[in-house]
Amino acid sequence: MSDKKLVEAITPMAVDFAKWYTDVVKKADLIDYTSVKGCMVIKPAGYAIWELIQRQLDDMFKATGVENVYLPMFIPESLLQKEKDHVDGFAPEVAWVTHGGDTPLTERLCIRPTSETLFCDFYAHDIHSYRDLPRLYNQWCSVVRWEKETRPFLRSREFLWQEGHTAHATATDAAERTKLMLDVYADLCEKVLAIPVVKGKKTDKEKFAGAHATFAIEAIMHDGKALQAGTSHDFGDGFARAFDITYTDRDNTLQYVHQTSWGLSTRVIGAIIMVHGDDSGLVLPPAIAPVQVMVVPIRQQKEGVLEAAEKIKTQLGDFRVKVDDSDKSPGWKFAEQEMRGIPLRIEIGPADIAAGKCVICRRDTREKIDCLLDDITATVESLLITIQKEMLARATEHLLANTFTAHDKAEFIRIFEEKIGFVKAMWCGGLPCEMAIKDDLGVTSRCIPFQQEHLAETCIYCDEPAAMMLYWGKAY
Amino acid sequence: MSDKKLVEAITPMAVDFAKWYTDVVKKADLIDYTSVKGCMVIKPAGYAIWELIQRQLDDMFKATGVENVYLPMFIPESLLQKEKDHVDGFAPEVAWVTHGGDTPLTERLCIRPTSETLFCDFYAHDIHSYRDLPRLYNQWCSVVRWEKETRPFLRSREFLWQEGHTAHATATDAAERTKLMLDVYADLCEKVLAIPVVKGKKTDKEKFAGAHATFAIEAIMHDGKALQAGTSHDFGDGFARAFDITYTDRDNTLQYVHQTSWGLSTRVIGAIIMVHGDDSGLVLPPAIAPVQVMVVPIRQQKEGVLEAAEKIKTQLGDFRVKVDDSDKSPGWKFAEQEMRGIPLRIEIGPADIAAGKCVICRRDTREKIDCLLDDITATVESLLITIQKEMLARATEHLLANTFTAHDKAEFIRIFEEKIGFVKAMWCGGLPCEMAIKDDLGVTSRCIPFQQEHLAETCIYCDEPAAMMLYWGKAY
Repeated sequence: MSDKKLVEAITPMAVDFAKWYTDVVKKADLIDYTSVKGCMVIKPAGYAIWELIQRQLDDMFKATGVENVYLPMFIPESLLQKEKDHVDGFAPEVAWVTHGGDTPLTERLCIRPTSETLFCDFYAHDIHSYRDLPRLYNQWCSVVRWEKETRPFLRSREFLWQEGHTAHATATDAAERTKLMLDVYADLCEKVLAIPVVKGKKTDKEKFAGAHATFAIEAIMHDGKALQAGTSHDFGDGFARAFDITYTDRDNTLQYVHQTSWGLSTRVIGAIIMVHGDDSGLVLPPAIAPVQVMVVPIRQQKEGVLEAAEKIKTQLGDFRVKVDDSDKSPGWKFAEQEMRGIPLRIEIGPADIAAGKCVICRRDTREKIDCLLDDITATVESLLITIQKEMLARATEHLLANTFTAHDKAEFIRIFEEKIGFVKAMWCGGLPCEMAIKDDLGVTSRCIPFQQEHLAETCIYCDEPAAMMLYWGKAY
Repeated sequence: MSDKKLVEAITPMAVDFAKWYTDVVKKADLIDYTSVKGCMVIKPAGYAIWELIQRQLDDMFKATGVENVYLPMFIPESLLQKEKDHVDGFAPEVAWVTHGGDTPLTERLCIRPTSETLFCDFYAHDIHSYRDLPRLYNQWCSVVRWEKETRPFLRSREFLWQEGHTAHATATDAAERTKLMLDVYADLCEKVLAIPVVKGKKTDKEKFAGAHATFAIEAIMHDGKALQAGTSHDFGDGFARAFDITYTDRDNTLQYVHQTSWGLSTRVIGAIIMVHGDDSGLVLPPAIAPVQVMVVPIRQQKEGVLEAAEKIKTQLGDFRVKVDDSDKSPGWKFAEQEMRGIPLRIEIGPADIAAGKCVICRRDTREKIDCLLDDITATVESLLITIQKEMLARATEHLLANTFTAHDKAEFIRIFEEKIGFVKAMWCGGLPCEMAIKDDLGVTSRCIPFQQEHLAETCIYCDEPAAMMLYWGKAY
């Protein structure tokens, strides 16, 4: 295969964005398809990204007092049915276990699509007194939702995630935790994944089945479509009443607890691809790049070249570095590493060694920097920081450039005819308008942003007074 | 509740070891039972131990070139059936998914009891050339086996583990990898968990369904019973032939790959409890203790006491330290921390502060050490190292003291009538003797140890010539 062919194998974004996405996912070796419909293999290059996200997010959780636990993957049917809205929301898309070996089960078990019911069942006998609160538990696991249409990372029948489930003494404590975890997710996205997000509340129509309020972070992809990257739910005491989770307060009175849950999944890997990628493949932010620097020896059969490459690797011991000493051509290696989104490539050949230097190439801008071998550690460190910062800056520019403001119905309709992006518009707060907009224009409400603006007096779709500003978009 | 009551709540080991075990698991707050039969909640104190094991074992894997991946939890029935011994071994104990939402599936899916078939299916289209080998993949996940009798950590319907699956060019490479991973497990047990193990090969009767050879590490519990703590399987090319996993070698000839798999589960937490625990509860090796040092302020309402406790915590920033400033009595705190197996307790009260010292108590020996506040970091560091070392030494003594040698049949029978432990004895290598011993004495072959001894000319149970020495024991 020539170098050209490797590159040509990706469909350009402009030709077919969906095809570009699946090409990148496959050619960057992130996943493989399986014999199990709707389920994928997450290959080393993909799983290592998840591990880096997991490690950093887990540290952020623990800094807020969260502890990890593990609950069963099975939910007895009777347990799933305890909270009405919740079962209505999830029952149609769960996988049912009916037999253990050859024996039919006396009660069917579903595989968790999410674990609110299990945590509630557990908390009901685990929490007794105000001294037991708050409970700040999280688990890393996989969940199953029997989706009809699936796409790698974005929607699969089984996916990996974390789900936090907390119990608090008061409604205020639960509300604060809900917001705190949304902030943690927004921080992860911006500081680690270099993805800017809009924080806000979901409309009642879009909130989680059984929640009092759902908050979300919404990101915008390269094609202008929106992707919900994490959610945080405030349950009030709804689940506590359904599952009878009570505690004795300081005055010896029995009270219901107030709960939250919050989750972030491997879906964010889809967001990383679609926010940062380009026609040569993946572009990874240094903070979650499994390999941050790839050293490519040029004319590696020449004496001293491989040694010089290995020496650079040793010098860069504080970073995630590899040497590509395979028998492929340098051009092939370059294309392959670009496909995999490795932030920095260092080229070193006999002429460089003689001059005491090397060439460093940035994946994101393709800029080439001559670097003295003595300066390599400091240069790499500062470049990785710069790349991380500039990737966020570019993504923020893209978010702003694709966020539009509609002041009246005609403008609202015209924007969605011409463009894909976030559209800010006033809303009466009524379900009929939300439904009509979805039916007429094929766009959905993304969130009621925390940062409200007053764009007009009336709702964008009816003549009722405006109650709030909403973000609209086409969603993944 | 008085301090006495907390301690009395555990059944003494000597009275009922099984009851002692479940008491500790529950009172040390490691697990909780659930509405899902045979499945447990792993609570923060239990899960944190698993996280520490996981982190250290994962680093050991990666040091040998292993990469993590994630494969689906579902196995289509037709895939499970591809390797005959394997399906015979596992089909009777798998959970079957038959419906997605309201729709019956066209083919039933079992929830993985182990993932050989999925990895084979994946490798069959992922491996093409000798350049693709070896494949050294591992996944951390949960698996399901529909057990009838369950016990926390030791046997549950769902449990957490890692399963490594590798593919190699030659039989020699696969055999070497099998042994290497067994060594990694033995290292983890000895250096991290302070549990000495016997390394050996399983008999054909006890080997993994579908394996060419199974190797195991066997540990001995406080009651003398054996526990298999980790296994490593050499598949030869058996699975490769069943799943048609081939590669083109350097001479352009099609060859079958040779495979291995190896697993270690949350079962080792059961081993930690049963090797190190005592009648006051858990005793944790410092390397996997979620809290290594608990600082207990004495007369904490007195001015300066809480501050002094917090200062110690800060000084000990390199360790996992907590301050117990709850409103419980010191006696209560001591009993609770002993129950949870925290390696070191530091007591600090007004008199200590005045004298510029504190008292350090070892959980394992209950020794009390006066320590100047200025020396605290060095003393704690050296004590944690000492405890880790001495716990292994004591467990090794126990292993040796409970390993017996039988030279003839009468002695063999008498030992098992009088004692529980490992018994070394010669074996003809025949299945009939192995079956007869199991039926007659209720003991099973543990392993054919790598360190062979020549104890007699003939088999312990028949008059045939001895082929090898075997370890026998009563197993968990």
